[in-house]
Parts: sequence; structure tokens; C-alpha cells
Amino acid sequence: MKNLLHSDIEMTVPLKQRGLLRHIHDLNRWNPKNFYPFYIADHRVGYVKHYLGEALKQWPNYFSITDDAVRFSAEVDRINDRSQVLDEVVHRLVDQGMIKYYLAETYPVTGANRDQVLAKLDRGAAIYFGIKNFSQHLNGYANSSQGLKLWAARRAPDRIRFPNMLDNLVAGGLPENLSLYNNLIKECEEEANIPVDLVKTAKAVGVVSYCRETEIGLKPDTLYCYDLELPETFVPQNTDGEVSEFQLLPVEEIIELIRNSNEFKPNSNLVNLDFLIRHGHISPDEPYYLELVRGLHGVT
Amino acid sequence: MKNLLHSDIEMTVPLKQRGLLRHIHDLNRWNPKNFYPFYIADHRVGYVKHYLGEALKQWPNYFSITDDAVRFSAEVDRINDRSQVLDEVVHRLVDQGMIKYYLAETYPVTGANRDQVLAKLDRGAAIYFGIKNFSQHLNGYANSSQGLKLWAARRAPDRIRFPNMLDNLVAGGLPENLSLYNNLIKECEEEANIPVDLVKTAKAVGVVSYCRETEIGLKPDTLYCYDLELPETFVPQNTDGEVSEFQLLPVEEIIELIRNSNEFKPNSNLVNLDFLIRHGHISPDEPYYLELVRGLHGVT
Repeated sequence: MKNLLHSDIEMTVPLKQRGLLRHIHDLNRWNPKNFYPFYIADHRVGYVKHYLGEALKQWPNYFSITDDAVRFSAEVDRINDRSQVLDEVVHRLVDQGMIKYYLAETYPVTGANRDQVLAKLDRGAAIYFGIKNFSQHLNGYANSSQGLKLWAARRAPDRIRFPNMLDNLVAGGLPENLSLYNNLIKECEEEANIPVDLVKTAKAVGVVSYCRETEIGLKPDTLYCYDLELPETFVPQNTDGEVSEFQLLPVEEIIELIRNSNEFKPNSNLVNLDFLIRHGHISPDEPYYLELVRGLHGVT
Repeated sequence: MKNLLHSDIEMTVPLKQRGLLRHIHDLNRWNPKNFYPFYIADHRVGYVKHYLGEALKQWPNYFSITDDAVRFSAEVDRINDRSQVLDEVVHRLVDQGMIKYYLAETYPVTGANRDQVLAKLDRGAAIYFGIKNFSQHLNGYANSSQGLKLWAARRAPDRIRFPNMLDNLVAGGLPENLSLYNNLIKECEEEANIPVDLVKTAKAVGVVSYCRETEIGLKPDTLYCYDLELPETFVPQNTDGEVSEFQLLPVEEIIELIRNSNEFKPNSNLVNLDFLIRHGHISPDEPYYLELVRGLHGVT
């Protein structure tokens, strides 16, 4: 799945810093004072920056903006109607230059639970409305005679977001019309040509979450994490042009890359840290171990 | 290590409830309004209930009690001196019937990090001052021909806390003078007679944490979790009288016990849930999966 959003506003971790915890700090910076909570039908579904709250005053029939919140009109009370209103609004905001891209792909707008869909919103507007985003990240590993090795994918040079950076073996957003299981099968095939029978042996092992303020909005992200043990002979092959190469690296090298470089895409660092902790490759004697474990599960 | 504390005030999960998430809710209930934060040298090291704050007014040289905090005197600025003052105070509070037991075993009083010891306090007083408590829980498992099985220990009938309930294979508090590694070796030997060479293959896999209000105080607990794969032929033997029997149960049965019974000691449920999620035995399609994963890492 293509990632076209926000390459211009997302900062990567400053290179001069070192250590494991910085990746968690970098992805968990946001100041609630810069946002209005955004409600639909009394459910807090997102956050909008003050400048966007001002812009939404163009549509007083659809949004009420008070000192403490932006609320979607209770008069529009069906999912399809809400989605249509939001779609019109997003189109206008794109025309006005307030929103950069219309992507013609919808994301679910959810309350506390992922299943509780209250509306749909174009993916290009998701960060502006600070709605929750869900994706799946799969780490492929091999138990070799030299110890545990982890596959890393190098993102293609023409990707708008994080070109040439390292990534987990498979990573992709969750469209609203595919189950976790079917989307994983699809992403594994597209990104690494992993046969279905092998994908079926993947284990769902938890989630990693974070919430990051950007200039234009907020990214509250939840990543479903998967482990897949691969035979040493298996070599992934990219089929959708999003990956330029794959490398099978010893875990010690992966830890070194996370600790002392910014080679990995920011949120891939978190997925790797979770993997390394769960597999016992980061010791409880590591400085800030408790903060690391807890920091991987930030509130979104 | 003996657990003598608070059996009379800790409630187990009400039996009428069902489901996985209730265990997390049960261990994460507390109302900050019932407590003064307790500071030593500007570090928040604990929480005390209002009744205890009142009692501490007996020692105005040692404690300042304002509307919003209890602060230990800055005049006493060395760890040993602070510990001596706290020890005298605890002895007096035991004499006065305010604290139930003096246990003659000290716990470290820490700030944000476990290494940052600001004083020592008798273990019998830990819950009253709401200081952070650290322990280690090890799950032993076997990959059998019938699938994954997990060892459960039945706590001895004469244990004051949670007699006859199921527990993880090995579980014990962390004394302030032993490293994580050495304490794990000791507990594995005492509780299950696991040979050192086998314990060395255990993996540290993260932490589980929670914070629970009781009538007398607060328990902010952090549990270091370990996985140990055992040969199917290995049978644990208790050597310190704390366990009456061990059972090797299929994971499906473990999940059933957690979901529909209160057989497991409350915090052992959390360690088991963490194990089951990490090993892929609880599906992301489980209701409240996200809340489960995040709820295992409550702020202490």
C-alpha cells in the first residue's frame, strides 16, 4: 500500500542523539494545549489543531467549535451521511490549500474501539483530524547456527515517506474493509512474496502504540505486531516496488543500528524494540528498561 | 520468600465476572484523591492515604504535611539517616496499631528509576507508604506433542496471602541487595528446584505493571517477566514449602481458567496474559485486545 502522506512534516530522530529510549520519546511528543478534541456523537474520535478548528467555522451547520472542543453536528447521525459531509469538507479544504492531498481511500473514524466506526474519512485528511490509525508490522526472523537473525527491508528510493530507510520485513496500513488476517496475507505477498502457508504460521504477538504531534495535526498510531520464523533458506522478494533490498542481519547488528543510527524508519524501531525485548535480547539491566517496555504502549 | 502482608485487605476478583480484561481492571483501581503524594528530596517516591498523613503529623521534624503532599524533611539528607528515621516511625506506628506487621526486611524506596534508592523502608510498611514494589515472575512451559503447555504452581494452604490459588511456576519479590539474575537463580531453586544451568536459559521478556488501592494504602507493582522452556521430562519440586503441587496444563486450559475462574492469584493472571499474547495464543480478534495489551503496562 502506498504511503504518500506528510513526508514534509514528519521529522526523523535527530542524528546526534544515541540510545534506545529516544525513539520512544520522539514518537510520543504532543501537547494537548495545541488541539481541540474532536467529537462525533459524544465519542472522542480525534484531535484538530486550532488553525483547523478556525477553518471548520466555515461550516457552522456541521461543526460546533467551542473553547474546549470541536463537535460534529448531532443532526447528521448516520455513518454514511457523516462520511459524505466529511468528504465534502475535505475536498473544500484541499481546494483551499489547507489539506495537502486527497487520496481517495477511506479510513475508519473510530471511538475507543477499532470496531466502533462512526464515520469514514479520506486518508489524506486523517492526520489533520488526528484520527486513530491502525497498521500491521511483521518481523521475519531465522534461527541460524550463528544465532537469531532478523530480516530488514530497505525502502525504495522513490518512496515519498522515509525513502532508503530500513523497515520491518512487512508493514502496511489496515484498510477499513479487510480483516487483520486477510490484510496480513495480502501485505506479506505484495511486500515480500511470502507464501500463504508460511504466513499462516505467523504469530500475533501484541501491539505497539504512540502518539505524535506534527505541524499540521496528530498521529495516534497503533501497530499490530507479528513474528514469523522463516527457514534460513527463505529469501523474500518484493513484488510491489516498495522495497529495494532485503538483508538478514544478526540481532546484535539490529540493536546497534537502533541504538546508534537512524537507519530504521522511526516506528519500525519501536516494533524492533518490542521484538528484541520479547525475545530476551534486551536485558532488564539495560538503562531505562522499564521506561522502554511501557513506552512501547503509549496511549493513542 | 515469605509473603505475609495484607491478606486481609486485598480483595480477589469478584467471581461473578467473566472475561480477560476484568483482571487488569481489578488491579488498576485507585483514586488519587484518596492520597497525598509522598516526596523525598523532591522525588515522588510513594503515596500515603489521608489517615496516615494525619498520623505522620506526630513527627513535624521529619514530615511536612500540606494540602497537596507529604514531604520528608530535607534536613535528613543521607540514605542511612532517612532509613533510620523511617524505621523508628514504622516501629512507633506498629506500636500504635496503625501498621500491622514489622517484617524486619527492607525494601528500597525509589524515585522514577529502580536504581535511584533514596531510603530503605521495612517491607511491612511498603503498602502504607505506597512505595514501588518489584518482583520476578517466571513462566515455565513445554512444547509437547499436544501443543504448548504451561506449568502452574498451587500455593500451599498455609500461605497467608492467596492460599491454594494457582501461581506462575516461580514468583518472588526482589530484595534490595540481590541482582535480578541472582534473585532469579535463588527463587527458581527454592520454589521449583530448577537447576542453575536450566535457569540460565530463561529469557527476560518484559515487565507487567499495575497500581492498586487498598483500604490501608497503595500497591504500585512492577513484575519482571521471564519465559523458561523446559524439557517435557522436567518436573518441578518445591523446596521451601510455599507450593503444594505443580500442574502442567495445556494453554487452552490456562486461558479458560483466566477467563472463567479466579483460580489464579490476581497478578499471576496478568503475567499469564502477557505470556499468552506474546506467544500468539490470544488473537487480535479477542474483544478488548488493545486494552489488554496496554493494560498490562499500567503506570506505577
